[in-house]
Amino acid sequence: MSEYRVLIDADDAKGLVYRVSSIFYNNDLNILSNSEYVDKDNNKFFMRSVVDGNIDCVELEKSLKEALPSNSIVKIISPKKKNIIIMATKELHALGDILIRHEAGELEANILAVVSNYDKLESLVTKFDIPYVTISHEGLDRSEHESKIIECINGFENVDYIVLAKYMRILTPRFVETYKDKIINIHHSFLPAFIGANPYKQAYDRGVKIIGATAHFVNNNLDEGPIIAQEVIHVNHAYSWKDMQRSGKDVEKVVLSRALKLALEDRIFVYANKTVIF
Amino acid sequence: MSEYRVLIDADDAKGLVYRVSSIFYNNDLNILSNSEYVDKDNNKFFMRSVVDGNIDCVELEKSLKEALPSNSIVKIISPKKKNIIIMATKELHALGDILIRHEAGELEANILAVVSNYDKLESLVTKFDIPYVTISHEGLDRSEHESKIIECINGFENVDYIVLAKYMRILTPRFVETYKDKIINIHHSFLPAFIGANPYKQAYDRGVKIIGATAHFVNNNLDEGPIIAQEVIHVNHAYSWKDMQRSGKDVEKVVLSRALKLALEDRIFVYANKTVIF
Amino acid sequence: MSEYRVLIDADDAKGLVYRVSSIFYNNDLNILSNSEYVDKDNNKFFMRSVVDGNIDCVELEKSLKEALPSNSIVKIISPKKKNIIIMATKELHALGDILIRHEAGELEANILAVVSNYDKLESLVTKFDIPYVTISHEGLDRSEHESKIIECINGFENVDYIVLAKYMRILTPRFVETYKDKIINIHHSFLPAFIGANPYKQAYDRGVKIIGATAHFVNNNLDEGPIIAQEVIHVNHAYSWKDMQRSGKDVEKVVLSRALKLALEDRIFVYANKTVIF
Amino acid sequence: MSEYRVLIDADDAKGLVYRVSSIFYNNDLNILSNSEYVDKDNNKFFMRSVVDGNIDCVELEKSLKEALPSNSIVKIISPKKKNIIIMATKELHALGDILIRHEAGELEANILAVVSNYDKLESLVTKFDIPYVTISHEGLDRSEHESKIIECINGFENVDYIVLAKYMRILTPRFVETYKDKIINIHHSFLPAFIGANPYKQAYDRGVKIIGATAHFVNNNLDEGPIIAQEVIHVNHAYSWKDMQRSGKDVEKVVLSRALKLALEDRIFVYANKTVIF
Repeated sequence: MSEYRVLIDADDAKGLVYRVSSIFYNNDLNILSNSEYVDKDNNKFFMRSVVDGNIDCVELEKSLKEALPSNSIVKIISPKKKNIIIMATKELHALGDILIRHEAGELEANILAVVSNYDKLESLVTKFDIPYVTISHEGLDRSEHESKIIECINGFENVDYIVLAKYMRILTPRFVETYKDKIINIHHSFLPAFIGANPYKQAYDRGVKIIGATAHFVNNNLDEGPIIAQEVIHVNHAYSWKDMQRSGKDVEKVVLSRALKLALEDRIFVYANKTVIF
Repeated sequence: MSEYRVLIDADDAKGLVYRVSSIFYNNDLNILSNSEYVDKDNNKFFMRSVVDGNIDCVELEKSLKEALPSNSIVKIISPKKKNIIIMATKELHALGDILIRHEAGELEANILAVVSNYDKLESLVTKFDIPYVTISHEGLDRSEHESKIIECINGFENVDYIVLAKYMRILTPRFVETYKDKIINIHHSFLPAFIGANPYKQAYDRGVKIIGATAHFVNNNLDEGPIIAQEVIHVNHAYSWKDMQRSGKDVEKVVLSRALKLALEDRIFVYANKTVIF
Repeated sequence: MSEYRVLIDADDAKGLVYRVSSIFYNNDLNILSNSEYVDKDNNKFFMRSVVDGNIDCVELEKSLKEALPSNSIVKIISPKKKNIIIMATKELHALGDILIRHEAGELEANILAVVSNYDKLESLVTKFDIPYVTISHEGLDRSEHESKIIECINGFENVDYIVLAKYMRILTPRFVETYKDKIINIHHSFLPAFIGANPYKQAYDRGVKIIGATAHFVNNNLDEGPIIAQEVIHVNHAYSWKDMQRSGKDVEKVVLSRALKLALEDRIFVYANKTVIF
Repeated sequence: MSEYRVLIDADDAKGLVYRVSSIFYNNDLNILSNSEYVDKDNNKFFMRSVVDGNIDCVELEKSLKEALPSNSIVKIISPKKKNIIIMATKELHALGDILIRHEAGELEANILAVVSNYDKLESLVTKFDIPYVTISHEGLDRSEHESKIIECINGFENVDYIVLAKYMRILTPRFVETYKDKIINIHHSFLPAFIGANPYKQAYDRGVKIIGATAHFVNNNLDEGPIIAQEVIHVNHAYSWKDMQRSGKDVEKVVLSRALKLALEDRIFVYANKTVIF
């Protein structure tokens, strides 16, 4: 008896829950938990079930696809550690939080490597016996630099997610397209406020009373991909923008880890530049 | 075509989602939203579906009960305004918030009456053309006083919920039993901390940095019924207990209104002195 | 013996606390509480003291001004109810919350009148024996309409604050200039995200996981005045934009009341398009 | 020119701010920030000033003590890294968060050593070149075990704080007395709810909708010392107590780090089993 996560992304139609649950029933599967969402405006149906039983994944997927509208996406996932690559630049807090969670066994993930354009974080990462690859951007144009990174990433098999833990360079459409819906970024602002550079300075200048952070998938438009998680903290007039930045780090690391956990547990559906999260 | 809420409280068994969704399917019902929860420790299954279609409620209930374990509870509810009676003493904030929400059309409720042991809030309540009944406890023992209140409440038909909006007297087991799982109370503390009288004074003396409020169903043990909703706010050393009390009022009214809304939308299941909330 | 609030807004200089506290000392005043803030970047000093004693306000103000840099602003305020006018359009929740707080004695304010461009809220407001003035904008251009409102407001003496409780029309620079730093608005968004119309629709389209509200003083640029207070709540994919709007109302009323309370207690300094709040 | 933190804990009296600020003025000190609090009920005055200038600390302390009520406590602190010892048992998350913050340079602290009754965390700690001392309690009574720990701690000079990062053994009065107001503990609950063992199990059984964590100084009564910081997160019926425990870890580490930061920045006064925090 094993546990599986069944993810269904389909056009909405009558009886979808019935069709799916009857297949579960006929396969003698026990439903441990079940979440559904129907977006009427877009006529979309999403379902995530955790089931328990003896199954032939290929057969089950086939049965489900036959019972569902023709363009449906069905995933049957046996829970196991996913493979992630972390990209970082110079800041330690978000990366460090992931390393500690990994060390504590909190993450269903293998960290294949940390890739950075600087060597600053190498001594930290190698403490944890995780490969650290420095790919400097100096003397390279953006495309050349990214080619080297892609080459590096392609050296690893079955990369499930690329986590940008304060990777401070803009990615090209080619890079983003290569790892579509696989790149998770932490943006140091409560998007869509303060898009772009130095959001803490922008927030300070505007005199806001709350600052925040946003974890999102990366798409071609900077800071505009589907949002996974957001969190905020209260600030006041006595905060300089450096203080906001310092406090913001705590929010950033919390939000990035939360988003990563959701991804690792297969809880996120992406559509219409949004996420459905179960 | 009408909307119905279907609530199922059953012992867990294999295929329950299948059985229910097949009945929905065979009755040509469209599922608008669906929530399920299985408590494995207690072998319990809870489901709340919102469905759309033409149904004979009696027939549908019969079909569902036949398909479910024998002691299952099935409720099929056509969304309409529920009837509530509010009980209060002297404080205005929680009652006032409900009155304003009612006036704004935010609540799926008819307020049949406000019952109080003082006449202090009468002028407010009657502004809104809601009957105000003063039943003084003076000269009466607790049982006599409650008999009068029960008599008053019994004068209204189909009372769905009794909302204690800062009603400051302890209810007897007889009263609680009479309206089992129908009495919603707001407790001016983050339960189970500071059970009993003057929790703000207790919180102040303890030097806490957070205060809160708890909405719960009332059972026989004071402050120990199933919790529906809780919220907190941060305080600091500069707060006197009066300041805490003042700030606490804002949390109290928010939490009570949130709990009431959940009840009016039939989102709460009660079991094992806890709530399942969809 | 009476209580006074002393507010000082000055260019920063050495010994300001000493100079002020020595004047308090020599006037036999007891400091009940004291807050200071120095903005080094702008070389500004702000101080709010609550003192207790017998004072000649004119003399004390003169002494303080003599001791402080020449362009300092000194205010000595005897705590008493301030006069406010509320402007609204059709929505009830924010106005209603203020009315209930006023009725409960929570606000240090007299509500002189509610002014609206519709008569929709009249029956609510008059319940509380507060004058309701409908000034329709129909058939008038913006300037004519505002002239009528200004005329109406000028009919009241000593108006301390104008509270825009979901007043849905844009104010002209003339109006804003007339009541500079006296107009408090609630914006139904977590500024600076979603400036402009229907922010909940914008937020929904963007797929945010948090929505918020912002109370701010109004200046000439729409939604860009100094921020007083902000608050947020978490939402998820299952929220339609109508749901966000509904939930947003709760945040809006909380934030507007919080901002109003701060203003009534003379806790806000405005400078550089920001607020200092003690 | 150097920065100093001046902390004053005195019986309240007229003119204290004046007396202190005149001494600052006469010593040609610039006040960078200033916080005061008067507790009228207990007739206590607290002040924390950050000043800038050339001072003879001994002389300044003498001047201040002469100007203040006789039993006043005056501390003049030159900001520098404090020395801390961390005690832990088997759990990694709270300790790990401190190690990463230390590595990132976020803490004004030297970690002299980590002391544990197990060797489980040794490999983590030694990665960071921090001494790890295992002092097993096996075969020892509580007093013998603590004697060994005290002996170990006494081997380090100038220990400012002892941080209990999920140290799961009860400390004796002797130990607590030895390091009075120097021991910071993280309690895995929103005190005073769920005092004692396995608070997450208690919280689950009670069906709470919020869980929290509390950082406090340790005194002789278990879980009853002065509270420094508290934080909460929302949970729901679908959380098992293991889920609560997992989520609780995130709150625990945030709260402990926040409390430690406040201590390292000399922002905490302790009195009447409470804290004043500037």
